[in-house]
Amino acid sequence: MRTTVGIIGGGPAGLLLARLLDRAGIESVVLEHRDRAYVEQRQRAGILEQGTMDALRACGAGERMDREGLVHHGIELRFDRRGHRIDFPSLTGGRGVMVYAQTEVVKDLVALRLAEGGPLLFEAEAVAVEGTETGEPLIRFRHEGREETLSCEVVIGCDGFHGIARQGIPRSVRRTYERVYPYGWLGILADVPPSCEELIYAHSPRGFALHSMRTPEISRLYLQVPSDTDPDDWPDERIWDELDARFAVDGDWELRRGPITQKSVTPMRSWVTEPMRHGRLFLAGDAAHIVPPTGAKGLNLAIADVCVLARALEHWRSTGSEDLLDAYSDTCLRRVWRAEHFSYFMTTALHTDPGQSAFDGKLQLAQLHRIADSTAAATELAENYTGIPLG
Amino acid sequence: MRTTVGIIGGGPAGLLLARLLDRAGIESVVLEHRDRAYVEQRQRAGILEQGTMDALRACGAGERMDREGLVHHGIELRFDRRGHRIDFPSLTGGRGVMVYAQTEVVKDLVALRLAEGGPLLFEAEAVAVEGTETGEPLIRFRHEGREETLSCEVVIGCDGFHGIARQGIPRSVRRTYERVYPYGWLGILADVPPSCEELIYAHSPRGFALHSMRTPEISRLYLQVPSDTDPDDWPDERIWDELDARFAVDGDWELRRGPITQKSVTPMRSWVTEPMRHGRLFLAGDAAHIVPPTGAKGLNLAIADVCVLARALEHWRSTGSEDLLDAYSDTCLRRVWRAEHFSYFMTTALHTDPGQSAFDGKLQLAQLHRIADSTAAATELAENYTGIPLG
Repeated sequence: MRTTVGIIGGGPAGLLLARLLDRAGIESVVLEHRDRAYVEQRQRAGILEQGTMDALRACGAGERMDREGLVHHGIELRFDRRGHRIDFPSLTGGRGVMVYAQTEVVKDLVALRLAEGGPLLFEAEAVAVEGTETGEPLIRFRHEGREETLSCEVVIGCDGFHGIARQGIPRSVRRTYERVYPYGWLGILADVPPSCEELIYAHSPRGFALHSMRTPEISRLYLQVPSDTDPDDWPDERIWDELDARFAVDGDWELRRGPITQKSVTPMRSWVTEPMRHGRLFLAGDAAHIVPPTGAKGLNLAIADVCVLARALEHWRSTGSEDLLDAYSDTCLRRVWRAEHFSYFMTTALHTDPGQSAFDGKLQLAQLHRIADSTAAATELAENYTGIPLG
Repeated sequence: MRTTVGIIGGGPAGLLLARLLDRAGIESVVLEHRDRAYVEQRQRAGILEQGTMDALRACGAGERMDREGLVHHGIELRFDRRGHRIDFPSLTGGRGVMVYAQTEVVKDLVALRLAEGGPLLFEAEAVAVEGTETGEPLIRFRHEGREETLSCEVVIGCDGFHGIARQGIPRSVRRTYERVYPYGWLGILADVPPSCEELIYAHSPRGFALHSMRTPEISRLYLQVPSDTDPDDWPDERIWDELDARFAVDGDWELRRGPITQKSVTPMRSWVTEPMRHGRLFLAGDAAHIVPPTGAKGLNLAIADVCVLARALEHWRSTGSEDLLDAYSDTCLRRVWRAEHFSYFMTTALHTDPGQSAFDGKLQLAQLHRIADSTAAATELAENYTGIPLG
């Protein structure tokens, strides 16, 4: 099999890239390890930055998002038993975010890809990337019981943190940066209308909690837990009781309870590999960087990567110049490190570290009070949360 | 001996408080452990916030400061071999800072106190504070070889981190918060005109460096060093060479060298004791809180404390109401924790922690780039640096 751009991974990054290339008249093949049902069901992030919404709309993939997604103009920071709203439009010149699950973005992009006949192979497991230092790289993959080869001009690794594309960059030129947090998130989906109109990020002496939502009928809630937590140790009632305790405020507010339909524990990690390009291999999204979910940046970074990459590939195909391809890694890494810092900031500002001192706890509260009281500090949060414009 | 307000400590906090009380017609006695020459020579901070300048001017102690001090409208952040100026007036609505050494503030306040005949006893060593839970507290002290007693209506502890006043608050009601940093500052005074017009805060892989100044002829420079450093291990040439390496930029810039006239190592500590009031005893300045010097907040916090306290004491004497005295600790602690957070932020943003990972180092640079590139982040720094208005 032969194509121009071989894309490993049919998540939002790989699928959006394929669509952007298709619209620029560049041929690509997407290889996805899992089957379609799995890809369309896995629960991931749910907050789209302004730039992510704009990118989806611009390529005709924003129709259902605009119909079903929930536009949010702020978040609530809750600490010391009080809520403080951060108003995004007034702080950022009109920017906001969209609550629309990653899994819905994937469904939309899969449907568009298949409707337009673009090659998208499910249950196609990439096993090796070869020849990235030549002009003829190839992807070896297994599909329907056979070993196959996809010959390309460039290979894009959108295959996530556990993917194999990264191994196409020799260890000797790769640098990795990492921080593992001593806690994770116990996340639930519950069939109950959200108890709030916007997300609530709650700092409490018992640990962090987040109230989010999927739709007006489905709540998505998270609890900070030790990273080795077994979800089976958390029966539904224990989860609701703990959420109640962490969201407690002085004054009227009640957390609605409902049937919990899904329950899982996610570890928290910051991780970056550099560079994001080696020869004819380019990495995008989680294949190159992971953020803890507190800043809602993972999906948005992946989308930003492929927007930069699509532009660079188009430029290369239309002019023959590799300038933008050469700049790809540095261009993306500036944004990646900004998001890494913001995600670290949101995480450490709101979670209780088991090793933290009383002094550290007081600093957290001083920082949260500052954000609640100061336009400058709130603006810094709002600009990062709604997303730095594509550079 | 008897007075209304007994003040332990003749540093800037104690002396300014005595002056503010004097102008409000409230009698006080200041007891200073050291002799006058020592007090007027000890090297401390040198940056006055807008609010500190205003306070000194308002009580007639700003004349020499306005004549000899250097008004600064910004600082330079230097990292990755480039300088980035933070312009204070444009970010804060006109605020700035004054370079005028603490030791000069003390000289001015001592001279005014003595000229006006207010009691200020040097070499008067307070040894105990008693009866703070009664309406008749007293200070026991040694002076000219005799044990003496100062009976007061209130006692103010302005006697610094090593002072004894704090012991007048029972251990059972005191909470302390602390962080000790694994590095200190090697500070020098040098007889050479500064190599810059504004302060330079330099982040480098070799550690932090700060270029400050005392006068147009005297430079004040600092190097991050391990906290157990012996200044004798740093001959002058080694100091200048290391400063050169840490301030190095791409492009023209030269560090002027000159005779080093003073050299010392300061440890770095964050520390707060709560509450700042117990019965008739009030703590102000370093007696209640210490910040690492990176944010230039220590002296300014002490001045803010006594401004709040003088207002509360005046209100009490003129109306009989203790409302403002009761609010003193909470009022000050809000500002204290803001400054603790800012000082921690400046310190950890700019210093190299011996235990830091490669990831931590990248986050530092991401944060510094953000401050250099974003109005919101630069405003947050500028507002804190020039000082939050007195609440």
